[in-house]
Amino acid sequence: MAKSGWQRKDLLGIAELERTEIEAVLATAASFHEVATRPIKKVPTLRGKTVLNLFFEPSTRTRSSFEIAEKRMSADAINFSTAGSSLSKGESLLDTTRNLQAMSPDVLVIRHAHPRVPHQLAARLDTSVVNAGDGAHEHPTQALLDAFTILQHREQLDGLRVAILGDIEHSRVVRSNVLLLRKMGASVVIGGPYTMMPRSAEALGVDVAYSIDEALEGADVVMMLRVQTERQSRMSIPSADEYFALFGLDRARLRRANEGALVLHPGPINRGVEIASDVADGRASLILEQVSSGVAVRMAVLYLLAGGAS
Amino acid sequence: MAKSGWQRKDLLGIAELERTEIEAVLATAASFHEVATRPIKKVPTLRGKTVLNLFFEPSTRTRSSFEIAEKRMSADAINFSTAGSSLSKGESLLDTTRNLQAMSPDVLVIRHAHPRVPHQLAARLDTSVVNAGDGAHEHPTQALLDAFTILQHREQLDGLRVAILGDIEHSRVVRSNVLLLRKMGASVVIGGPYTMMPRSAEALGVDVAYSIDEALEGADVVMMLRVQTERQSRMSIPSADEYFALFGLDRARLRRANEGALVLHPGPINRGVEIASDVADGRASLILEQVSSGVAVRMAVLYLLAGGAS
Amino acid sequence: MAKSGWQRKDLLGIAELERTEIEAVLATAASFHEVATRPIKKVPTLRGKTVLNLFFEPSTRTRSSFEIAEKRMSADAINFSTAGSSLSKGESLLDTTRNLQAMSPDVLVIRHAHPRVPHQLAARLDTSVVNAGDGAHEHPTQALLDAFTILQHREQLDGLRVAILGDIEHSRVVRSNVLLLRKMGASVVIGGPYTMMPRSAEALGVDVAYSIDEALEGADVVMMLRVQTERQSRMSIPSADEYFALFGLDRARLRRANEGALVLHPGPINRGVEIASDVADGRASLILEQVSSGVAVRMAVLYLLAGGAS
Repeated sequence: MAKSGWQRKDLLGIAELERTEIEAVLATAASFHEVATRPIKKVPTLRGKTVLNLFFEPSTRTRSSFEIAEKRMSADAINFSTAGSSLSKGESLLDTTRNLQAMSPDVLVIRHAHPRVPHQLAARLDTSVVNAGDGAHEHPTQALLDAFTILQHREQLDGLRVAILGDIEHSRVVRSNVLLLRKMGASVVIGGPYTMMPRSAEALGVDVAYSIDEALEGADVVMMLRVQTERQSRMSIPSADEYFALFGLDRARLRRANEGALVLHPGPINRGVEIASDVADGRASLILEQVSSGVAVRMAVLYLLAGGAS
Repeated sequence: MAKSGWQRKDLLGIAELERTEIEAVLATAASFHEVATRPIKKVPTLRGKTVLNLFFEPSTRTRSSFEIAEKRMSADAINFSTAGSSLSKGESLLDTTRNLQAMSPDVLVIRHAHPRVPHQLAARLDTSVVNAGDGAHEHPTQALLDAFTILQHREQLDGLRVAILGDIEHSRVVRSNVLLLRKMGASVVIGGPYTMMPRSAEALGVDVAYSIDEALEGADVVMMLRVQTERQSRMSIPSADEYFALFGLDRARLRRANEGALVLHPGPINRGVEIASDVADGRASLILEQVSSGVAVRMAVLYLLAGGAS
Repeated sequence: MAKSGWQRKDLLGIAELERTEIEAVLATAASFHEVATRPIKKVPTLRGKTVLNLFFEPSTRTRSSFEIAEKRMSADAINFSTAGSSLSKGESLLDTTRNLQAMSPDVLVIRHAHPRVPHQLAARLDTSVVNAGDGAHEHPTQALLDAFTILQHREQLDGLRVAILGDIEHSRVVRSNVLLLRKMGASVVIGGPYTMMPRSAEALGVDVAYSIDEALEGADVVMMLRVQTERQSRMSIPSADEYFALFGLDRARLRRANEGALVLHPGPINRGVEIASDVADGRASLILEQVSSGVAVRMAVLYLLAGGAS
């Protein structure tokens, strides 16, 4: 498989990528997406390659999506979590990863609570680094899988109107998505509770709505964000019921969007909080397709970083 | 390998199975049992298949038995535990598993503290589900491996007398074993402390003895159950010494059973509580054979659910 | 590949090994070391073999080094940790491992807080056992990888002067290294704070220095040990700054050693405590090479124990 359009050692964020690089990932993902439909869902592409998964924050979805992608590519996957690691012995993250690098892995997949940790490591390591989420900064494979999912149902992103709704300020998903969508020619409107909107929303180059109804007008795609119910008290947001009444996506509200608008959510969803069950499970919802797309996109990223002759 | 006698998508419990289906699993297990004796203990049967292991209760034995079975079949095994999963973020189990299903696994192996959770998931998922223990309800692969182990030493189960002794009420092992043994033509007597006997023991279709000596009379097979010493205070059972004196299996007691009676225990054993060390390590004991059988039976189940052309 | 010079079932400690056996491991490791430099870092040598990793103490470095070695040899790796295991249900370690053995693994890699646990298990199990650290007793693969690393830069160990500095008393690394270095003809001097020196240091057959400056005189190799900062209060050692002033290896001190002396550290390092950052990252430092050597040495050990026809 040709790897035209991709030269980078790492995938750190959407911020760094050119439009052609985004297109390269999406085109590669399309060719891997089909693998999941085969009886034998495995390709020998990364046989003999080692991928280290370093997750310093809890994660079911992203971690398992990467692990499945790795195994489906025939790579060897090695998992680390914070508990039981040398980090608890006071070693610096850079020393830990340098040590891991000395074992000659081919790719390091890292999630960390602090922004730009993957960038700092990538600058110091020869190994390819994939950012699987760095604080509220970026989550590039999520934005890529969202774009890939939309493109299974739309010809192009160019010209689409995308509404992103909910806890904008604390979301790395938003940041990566806004960057990607704008680079690909879509327009974006964000909306959510006042206390969850960033101070300088306009600086993102997006339109800002303070009511969800206003944000939905004319939207071709609606991306709902998860309410971090576990942080609720700290964030002084209303109760789940109040949140749903004011900002939740139900069927009536969804009708404000364009005919046939697509609904996405990065998961895990809170039914009856940010999204009604019948919308989450309805015809417009691509939530489970996003999960399948995630494996294909991550296979593509691993291939572009570690596959074939270099 | 032919899969005659098996049509099901899932293995949820012994309750659902016909005698011919039980025989199909046992016959398939026999052909995989031999693999463990080879220098290269691996067959390519499930190459390219993915098995997700979801254990919501601690387990060394069952989890590792499944994982070894999966790897010996060349499947890709992905492990989840409760800690660090989205479940801690309040997502429903059904949503979590739907998401996992969207990654196109071939089999989901699940252990959960609540009865019938595997059944509920199986009804809603296309993926094959294996019940690895649901509360005090069923543990079908345990009953199948017990039967397989007995059949390494006896021509048939038909006509055998099996005594199951100990904490009957809280045991999923008992339920699955009673169901299987009766379907296969064995007769079962249960016995244990009064506080550990179910209210309606006769409804199980078994004989009930309130002394271990009485239960052992005429037994061809003796299945001892683990005393959950960690729950002892809650269950108001006597001390370990008292328990052993009243209900423990020692050599003298074992002589009440038929000549050459077989001794089984699902493990982990409490030496000197429900079983004497010399019995656990003695000639009659099949405890370690049960462990080997477990791998073979789980290979068979995985094969019947995910192997070959469908 | 020939396995001349190796007949043992287990690798328990350096104490048991003959010089020719140490040489056999090192020669085998040399042939595997090259694998890490290939684009496809995998050999089929242990395909179909199962290795169980039982770590009863936290470990990033050693555990992941073994796991990478196992996967690079195409073995199936199964991981256990204490949490969630039957051990928490009161089962004895011997019963647990007997059960694991009944699943027919080929090798058991074990780390345990108590000395000689691997030896006791090895005596009772047919499965090969590798000691990955038993209390303050032995850590044979660490000593072997240290020797292997030195031999990448020196013709032989014979005649070298090795200074081992720091927390001598609590270190399994020291014990295994002293045993190995002496068997191979090197001379060893140990030094460290008075409270960290063993009562009977001379019994080890090494020279003893109570100042680091004295210990460094004439050294060809300097092995620094980790200060267990997490145990600091218990061990009544001075503050990190004081420790560094008195016992830390900085550039000025290193000049007391022989021209071109090599610096090793088992990691994780405490920068500015037992070693200055510029020394740890400097030209003399082999710290990251030790990590690479670790994978090669563990591949060699696994090969000698489980590889080829038996």
